[in-house]
Amino acid sequence: MTSAEPFPPPRLGEPYLLTPGPLTTAEEVKQAMLRDWGSWDDDFRAMTRDMRDRLLAMLGPGNADYDCVPIQGSGSFAVEAMLGSFVPRDGKVLVLANGAYGQRAATTLDYLGRDKVVLDKGDYLPPRGDEVARILADDPAISHVLAIHCETSSGILNPIEEIAAATRGAGRKLLIDSMSAFGALPLNPAELECAAFVSSANKCIEGVPGFGFVIARTSELEAAQGRAHSLSLDVHAQWAHMERTGQWRFTPPTHVVAAFVTALRLHEAEGGVAARGARYVRNRDVLVSGMRAQGFETLLNSHWLSPIIVTFFCPADPAFEFGRFYELMKDKGFIIYPGKLTVVDSFRLGCIGRMDEHVMRQVVEAAGDALAEMGVASAAPPAKALEERKKLAA
Amino acid sequence: MTSAEPFPPPRLGEPYLLTPGPLTTAEEVKQAMLRDWGSWDDDFRAMTRDMRDRLLAMLGPGNADYDCVPIQGSGSFAVEAMLGSFVPRDGKVLVLANGAYGQRAATTLDYLGRDKVVLDKGDYLPPRGDEVARILADDPAISHVLAIHCETSSGILNPIEEIAAATRGAGRKLLIDSMSAFGALPLNPAELECAAFVSSANKCIEGVPGFGFVIARTSELEAAQGRAHSLSLDVHAQWAHMERTGQWRFTPPTHVVAAFVTALRLHEAEGGVAARGARYVRNRDVLVSGMRAQGFETLLNSHWLSPIIVTFFCPADPAFEFGRFYELMKDKGFIIYPGKLTVVDSFRLGCIGRMDEHVMRQVVEAAGDALAEMGVASAAPPAKALEERKKLAA
Repeated sequence: MTSAEPFPPPRLGEPYLLTPGPLTTAEEVKQAMLRDWGSWDDDFRAMTRDMRDRLLAMLGPGNADYDCVPIQGSGSFAVEAMLGSFVPRDGKVLVLANGAYGQRAATTLDYLGRDKVVLDKGDYLPPRGDEVARILADDPAISHVLAIHCETSSGILNPIEEIAAATRGAGRKLLIDSMSAFGALPLNPAELECAAFVSSANKCIEGVPGFGFVIARTSELEAAQGRAHSLSLDVHAQWAHMERTGQWRFTPPTHVVAAFVTALRLHEAEGGVAARGARYVRNRDVLVSGMRAQGFETLLNSHWLSPIIVTFFCPADPAFEFGRFYELMKDKGFIIYPGKLTVVDSFRLGCIGRMDEHVMRQVVEAAGDALAEMGVASAAPPAKALEERKKLAA
Repeated sequence: MTSAEPFPPPRLGEPYLLTPGPLTTAEEVKQAMLRDWGSWDDDFRAMTRDMRDRLLAMLGPGNADYDCVPIQGSGSFAVEAMLGSFVPRDGKVLVLANGAYGQRAATTLDYLGRDKVVLDKGDYLPPRGDEVARILADDPAISHVLAIHCETSSGILNPIEEIAAATRGAGRKLLIDSMSAFGALPLNPAELECAAFVSSANKCIEGVPGFGFVIARTSELEAAQGRAHSLSLDVHAQWAHMERTGQWRFTPPTHVVAAFVTALRLHEAEGGVAARGARYVRNRDVLVSGMRAQGFETLLNSHWLSPIIVTFFCPADPAFEFGRFYELMKDKGFIIYPGKLTVVDSFRLGCIGRMDEHVMRQVVEAAGDALAEMGVASAAPPAKALEERKKLAA
């Protein structure tokens, strides 16, 4: 399947961002920032209401018990707000970590003084349902499980249904960091029995960065009163104020909000979560098959590849140097992303943002040209890299 | 003195924001948001470096010991980050409160579990140096004094030099919330012996909202390691990461940063702090004299009026109704701001943003027309309002 009409390219001289957010956004999204809004005014309140309604509508049926609370700052601010607001001071969290974002959540809990245990799967191996069930059975003090939906450190799509089933089965509460997945991958919190999840403006909904949002069960929002460690990151206080006044508690990033509402409209016009996800899948498939045809190898086997971002091993050829590859790709119009693996060198290419498979074909071609310019004869990774991949069961 | 060339008006149908931020920004500032930036890329790192350098250059001579740390979120996030990072867990803060922002700082300290004492001067009376000196002499446990530079609740410009002298004289540390003053009023932290202060992108530097910044002595930044209550609001961690990598720790609001750098260039081109402050003084003077000529009265006598925002009493005439006045002013192209006084009704008009005295004359005219349309015969406030003002010594 091919999308009929390519998106218009960015403005002259502006590279595509093959990064997991900030990402390449539509011109209309950026144009929406050409106006100053009074944050106290009715027009902006209506915009905030519209934004919350549109996000809630994306949850699908059966989610009338959930509400949406935007939080200023980056996505990590929203994660911290969720942890500080929904985990009681005497709670204990099982953090399912297989990359930087799981590790960051664990660090956040240390700051908050909340008890935790980390299931650390290393650079990319997925936390599985049976492991989660075992840990929960062994430790009745664990009140919450924190899962990372798509861990962009490796690009793995974690098995969220398995994790949810294990959490539900043990009668614990599930919190999800769906930062880089919500809007492109289905996430029905009622079906997962998820207490709360977070995402942000500048990921799969294709807005610009400046705030995140928490989507939580209303009963969880009510129970969070007086619990937060931080005034700014108090989800209950933000929610209660917004319900009462229609306004954000403290100055909102008005231009970023206006851009986001435009991004939500474009998301709906494209066909919602299903269509957005389908485009990203096409992007990934064109990218991965093209890069493999050039001799590159992915860290993950196809079962675990997300349509969000893909980790490729760096070629073993000594003529390959990442800094030079980065600059060559940038000269050709693509900002790429360094890898985060600890055992072998890698880089990442994002599939999200205002890009289609036509762009992904250009990316593949640019990567091939860059290798040729560097004098890299083969894009094959070192043997160690392929050994690494064998650790991963389907 | 009159500025020769009026600023171009906002786009068709867009009102001026007579509010203390978000405010009316220059078209160039908004145009700077029409590009997507990779937050990891060298070009964006250079932009962040340029921003920090420009802010530090605004401090004036003798401030080589200070550094600048941006913090995502609204200004209140930066205030919380400052309090959580520079006040030790066993510290105690004297909060000088005469409005909502002093009260909010006190609430923040409650969240942080830091000891505090509040000098509460009510709606607008200024905290004076001799009061501060007396409190500090009586309570040796107080380690820090928090002052609000311009309290926008009333629009009062608090006597920051007196407060700084009393704090310095007692050997305590001074923290300043200069949210709505920095960039238009001189603030030399070395001269004040200020440990740290905060401001934000969308105030007198005339950027758009999305982040604030802390300016602190390097020794304070170093001492803050391990002290913060919050990962996201840890000033030391943000500073250390930025020094090491040139990057923000977590996703920055890239478009808002680009807008801010443009705003900083316009600020410099206008003539820096002195010229920006002079324009706001002209705005205020035209506004206040024009409104007084219409019969309106200001809450504050001229000695205490800031060039940032001015509180006017609502007319006593029963034909006056604030909601209607707001809508009439909006129809005429001006978003005004409600008052925050507890004893008498009031409203506020901001003097900051991309506006000059030509605009302020239109504001005065619009206010007069609005009164006429409402059938308000006299703009004079109730007698109680004028009694209120008598409490204020020069």
